Amino acid sequence: MTNLNKKAIEKHFQLKGKIKIESKIKLKTKNDLSIYYSPGVGAVSKLLMKNPKKSKDYLWTNNLVAVISDGSAVLGLGDIGPIAAMPVMEGKCLLFKHFANINAIPIVLDCHDSNHIVQTILDIAPSFGAINLEDIAAPKCFYIEDMLKKKLSIPVMHDDQHGTAIVVLAGLINSFKVIEKNIENSKITIVGAGAAGAAITKIIHKFSPSTELILVDSRGIISSHRSDLNETKRKLLKITNPNNINGDLKFALHNSQVFIGVSKANLLTSTDIKLMNKQPIIFALANPDPEINPKLAKKAGAAIVATGRSDYPNQINNVLAFPGIFRGALDNHINKITDDHKILAAEAIAAQVKNPSINKIIPSVFDKQLVNVIARLIK
Amino acid sequence: MTNLNKKAIEKHFQLKGKIKIESKIKLKTKNDLSIYYSPGVGAVSKLLMKNPKKSKDYLWTNNLVAVISDGSAVLGLGDIGPIAAMPVMEGKCLLFKHFANINAIPIVLDCHDSNHIVQTILDIAPSFGAINLEDIAAPKCFYIEDMLKKKLSIPVMHDDQHGTAIVVLAGLINSFKVIEKNIENSKITIVGAGAAGAAITKIIHKFSPSTELILVDSRGIISSHRSDLNETKRKLLKITNPNNINGDLKFALHNSQVFIGVSKANLLTSTDIKLMNKQPIIFALANPDPEINPKLAKKAGAAIVATGRSDYPNQINNVLAFPGIFRGALDNHINKITDDHKILAAEAIAAQVKNPSINKIIPSVFDKQLVNVIARLIK
Repeated sequence: MTNLNKKAIEKHFQLKGKIKIESKIKLKTKNDLSIYYSPGVGAVSKLLMKNPKKSKDYLWTNNLVAVISDGSAVLGLGDIGPIAAMPVMEGKCLLFKHFANINAIPIVLDCHDSNHIVQTILDIAPSFGAINLEDIAAPKCFYIEDMLKKKLSIPVMHDDQHGTAIVVLAGLINSFKVIEKNIENSKITIVGAGAAGAAITKIIHKFSPSTELILVDSRGIISSHRSDLNETKRKLLKITNPNNINGDLKFALHNSQVFIGVSKANLLTSTDIKLMNKQPIIFALANPDPEINPKLAKKAGAAIVATGRSDYPNQINNVLAFPGIFRGALDNHINKITDDHKILAAEAIAAQVKNPSINKIIPSVFDKQLVNVIARLIK
Repeated sequence: MTNLNKKAIEKHFQLKGKIKIESKIKLKTKNDLSIYYSPGVGAVSKLLMKNPKKSKDYLWTNNLVAVISDGSAVLGLGDIGPIAAMPVMEGKCLLFKHFANINAIPIVLDCHDSNHIVQTILDIAPSFGAINLEDIAAPKCFYIEDMLKKKLSIPVMHDDQHGTAIVVLAGLINSFKVIEKNIENSKITIVGAGAAGAAITKIIHKFSPSTELILVDSRGIISSHRSDLNETKRKLLKITNPNNINGDLKFALHNSQVFIGVSKANLLTSTDIKLMNKQPIIFALANPDPEINPKLAKKAGAAIVATGRSDYPNQINNVLAFPGIFRGALDNHINKITDDHKILAAEAIAAQVKNPSINKIIPSVFDKQLVNVIARLIK
């Protein structure tokens, strides 16, 4: 076991929970009990019966996000179930509090069927001000998010899709500035057609519809020649692979300006990079081990390399996006997080780097202005 | 609107939520992020995959109660739904924190069918260390609690039933001491056959099987002569009304030593009290207005009067019981709160009053020892 893992286990054992509930007021007298509980609280209930929309003025839900997971796609660990997913969800709640002063509570689900998950979340939804779906496996994550967005009037976002996609787009915007080329007439190859890959594909297409996008999964390029595509992948054909090319990753990489990997360790070789355009941009985002070691990628000619790791430059980290997105969604009382919001957030993250450079295409996760810069756009 | 209600609305508006989430640790460096979130947290998840029982050593669930309601029987307001129920549930969470240092989160449900509620709670149960069911209407509250107790291995308690019943029994134990009679050969009339009435009946029978219990609902004494009884009331016939008497409240009160009302305001008259045994004990627990004004009851000869109100002596308040019960259930890692636990708690609450007297049959809600005195018995 690594030292980091040992330390993490030790600290979690000491803490027995990374978050806690605190009262905002002290209960000192019987009168306090009468005001904040029975019978006084009944007057607030009556007020909300008549006008449920006033809940934002009276309830903790006005600053509350539920971090909900069925534990089916947790970190690199896969389908580990609700209990084992809990430390990750608690950690996410810690990030919500630290970066955006949002109260977040972890809810882990002991059910797996898509419709069942949707129903359960609908049932508990009045308990929250917004919902962050987390670590739910593809393709069911797409259906679950779509259905919840349709049926609920509070913001819902699957962060593994959109948080990642927003930060990737921010990094791309600055990368193209650095290499002084245009994303509009470039070709981008995306490897991995799960939650993150699909969302990255969609946001780049929305941002720059003329960009040629090639999506590759473990069986090769997604094309209409294939008979093994699920519904999500078939839908993505509408915005990818305009020439309907067929083949493997190497074939896709010819003339590509950008490689974005959300797949698995060591999938990309130096030889692969040499097939790409000059000044190739490599986003090797597999965690914990990237698709190619950044040093190797540079040696093979990469102009810019980004990973998911904090020990290399250019860390693509969701925490740059979701705190500001939800801060804005709650403060501005919106009921949907739209594609336009996501692009505004990506542009804001990119703009937060005053002079983008090879090793600085993304702001620091500790950039204190970022959350508010994003939040005011989510309206 | 009363001054108290005005103040309650004003304070709730200022607070915009009575509880909040706090981090137990500060995130200062990238290393902190690596320990408490990805990738370090993955080691904790792996550990829990292999041994889910260790969750009590690593997760906030070890000190977490969910306060769950469908908003179907809130205070005296009835079926007001999930949003309007939320201020009450937040208040309950405040009490959990204040009196027992337990983290409690309010979950309100947008579903009403019993089986649907059970399924939803089963689905989210791994998120919590224990479940406090709150303000769910009778008779579905009985079925929901029974099913959850059968299917879950964490403690579940419907506080409107058992919290009330425990404190009533505590008050009765001391009342009988004060009047120097025995509960064993007494007759007790209970009016109201909802959640609280049923649980009070059951706990007194468990504590003292020879006591003659007469249960009365809005149509009169529960007896086998009646054809309008639901399943819950039919079951209660096994432990009440041994002589199968039939009639109204007045008929029931003959020879009764105790009247316990969990029904409605001004149901009981001075004339009614005069039908009872000498030194009658009157628990007039309807909220906010009792079955009879305590002063009137005293004038009619009542030896002891208890109500649900804080502005008269002898307030029967659930907060005397549930904090200690759940504190013990969590600390001692039990998976069921049993009838024996409830009786132990009632006896402990009673014993906390060193010299019971007419105006002091119950400890103060601010008695700081009480939570620990009860908690150590729940094992």
